Amino acid sequence: MLTVHAYAATAATNPLGPTTIERRELGPHDVLIEIKFCGICHSDIHHARSEWGSANYPVVPGHEIAGIVTQVGSKVTRHAVGDRVGVGCLVDSCGECANCRKGEEQHCLKGSTLTYGGIGKDGQLTQGGYSTHIVVTEDFVLKIPEGIGLDAAAPLLCAGITTYAPLRHWGAGPGKKVAVVGLGGLGHMAVKLAHAMGADVTVLSQSLNKKEDGLRLGADHYHATKDPETFKKLAGSFDLIVNTVSAKIDLDAYLSLLALDGALVNVGAPAEPLSVNVFSLLMPRRSFAGSLIGGIRQTQEMLNFCARHHIGADIEVIPASKINEAYERVLASDVRYRFVIDTATLK
Amino acid sequence: MLTVHAYAATAATNPLGPTTIERRELGPHDVLIEIKFCGICHSDIHHARSEWGSANYPVVPGHEIAGIVTQVGSKVTRHAVGDRVGVGCLVDSCGECANCRKGEEQHCLKGSTLTYGGIGKDGQLTQGGYSTHIVVTEDFVLKIPEGIGLDAAAPLLCAGITTYAPLRHWGAGPGKKVAVVGLGGLGHMAVKLAHAMGADVTVLSQSLNKKEDGLRLGADHYHATKDPETFKKLAGSFDLIVNTVSAKIDLDAYLSLLALDGALVNVGAPAEPLSVNVFSLLMPRRSFAGSLIGGIRQTQEMLNFCARHHIGADIEVIPASKINEAYERVLASDVRYRFVIDTATLK
Repeated sequence: MLTVHAYAATAATNPLGPTTIERRELGPHDVLIEIKFCGICHSDIHHARSEWGSANYPVVPGHEIAGIVTQVGSKVTRHAVGDRVGVGCLVDSCGECANCRKGEEQHCLKGSTLTYGGIGKDGQLTQGGYSTHIVVTEDFVLKIPEGIGLDAAAPLLCAGITTYAPLRHWGAGPGKKVAVVGLGGLGHMAVKLAHAMGADVTVLSQSLNKKEDGLRLGADHYHATKDPETFKKLAGSFDLIVNTVSAKIDLDAYLSLLALDGALVNVGAPAEPLSVNVFSLLMPRRSFAGSLIGGIRQTQEMLNFCARHHIGADIEVIPASKINEAYERVLASDVRYRFVIDTATLK
Repeated sequence: MLTVHAYAATAATNPLGPTTIERRELGPHDVLIEIKFCGICHSDIHHARSEWGSANYPVVPGHEIAGIVTQVGSKVTRHAVGDRVGVGCLVDSCGECANCRKGEEQHCLKGSTLTYGGIGKDGQLTQGGYSTHIVVTEDFVLKIPEGIGLDAAAPLLCAGITTYAPLRHWGAGPGKKVAVVGLGGLGHMAVKLAHAMGADVTVLSQSLNKKEDGLRLGADHYHATKDPETFKKLAGSFDLIVNTVSAKIDLDAYLSLLALDGALVNVGAPAEPLSVNVFSLLMPRRSFAGSLIGGIRQTQEMLNFCARHHIGADIEVIPASKINEAYERVLASDVRYRFVIDTATLK
């Protein structure tokens, strides 16, 4: 066992604080990673505060992990000491079910193992990336290509793949009109990626406050959703709308913005159910769908795509001591566009 | 002008009765059709009773029309006197917008012209197929191949294409598991068509009352939705669910029956909005969509497909004098599976 420094929540209402946790001994297929940076995802906050059901404490959040391989198990072939690598939301899956065989491990029919809050190979609660080291089976370790800084790469492992997957699945590319709802951690990645794929990109944000940023990130157009004219002007225009906002939205209003065969895709879920008038989907033919992170193969494809297009997240690097403050700023949407913890400050 | 016999509603609360209506003089691209049979669609009832907004009376319903060409305009090239032809829900569209160019005239951006209750080329209210003759521009007249009786072909023009279109769009075929919700006029066509396409077909009906019929029509499996075990047993099984029921359903329960990348497609819309928990669409990736009849090209494809596979609707032919009684029986789901009016009885 390896004792490593970490930052953990010890109860739903406690702030996170420094601690140590144990990492398992390396199995033959395991990789030991020295974590250099870990992004802060909104899910981390939900989980640390047990807002999605009963979390088991202590909780070490973090599933946007970037670091360097420092040791490999005897049978590891995919990674070597010194490699720049990343770990996202998943650290294991059955590998045998229909969905795993399709490379959609996030939908493993036996249940994939989440990077934190899951049960690992060793029967222990998994603990995430707000720590100095992590042990992960080699198949769930991604290569971070040269050309992306490890700090800017970290958020790609969740925010990147979460937006890349629906853009690819619903065919974003030249000639396609893509709207991104919300310009936060996920939204800013969606804009960069859709732009790099060659789509015509529109940001739909509550106000025009971040318009300059949106255009700089790659958007071709920027509209305020609090202006009812937006919905009239853009009716029937989009082939794909990626909704990165987890709050309740007026589904029918957003569906009205889709052209024939357009899809509105949620990458997050509001706690309450949404209401939908089926006529919004009939005339014309439209769909409402969900997309959850992405599989391992596609996550590697996304990282390679980002390297080729010089894409990283826009980040604000913080020391561990600022994690609790950062949580409050995430909740206040006061971040452009992702906090990344410098894990050297955990020691 | 041509004065023809018809059956019409004169007010929302009146029963339908015999009348005469005028058909326009043949323009150069028009076809005069002697209607032989016209199906009774649930929409006819909604429209005759003005349940979808303010209908203009008199209303002659009917958009499942099968007959014989008796005269053609001077420039008609697609049809000739004596041809067996059909007319569905549409009699015109702009022909120039993006959706018309894709062959999806039902989604014409300028608004397609409905067979009844629309405004025709001549500026007059269009009147449907509960009549002895109709004049339609040649591009909206379909050929009914030999091998399907005109009576059994009539319902294909709406019930057929309404179910054929989503089955094709969402890839029903060998290796695909398709469920059909509801075994009525639409549902029985969906079962026949999905079976002919080579899919593994399941009927999801409230009870097992029509199980024998369902299996005879081509279903491989039949389950009662009032049995909660059905939802447990079939969780995650289907690639496509075609919902032919317009009443309110528990969307989350039906979505739970879909496999990764499965789609639940409504071909009708309940009057009230539905509630959806976005988690049902996220885990795994699923979609909820709508589909509205189909374009002219695809309607012809469907008719040819039906002829090749010896598919017609299961019908009960009635004289015009039984239309009002038939309406009540449709509302009571007391028809296996489509009423078709013998228009010879209109005279």
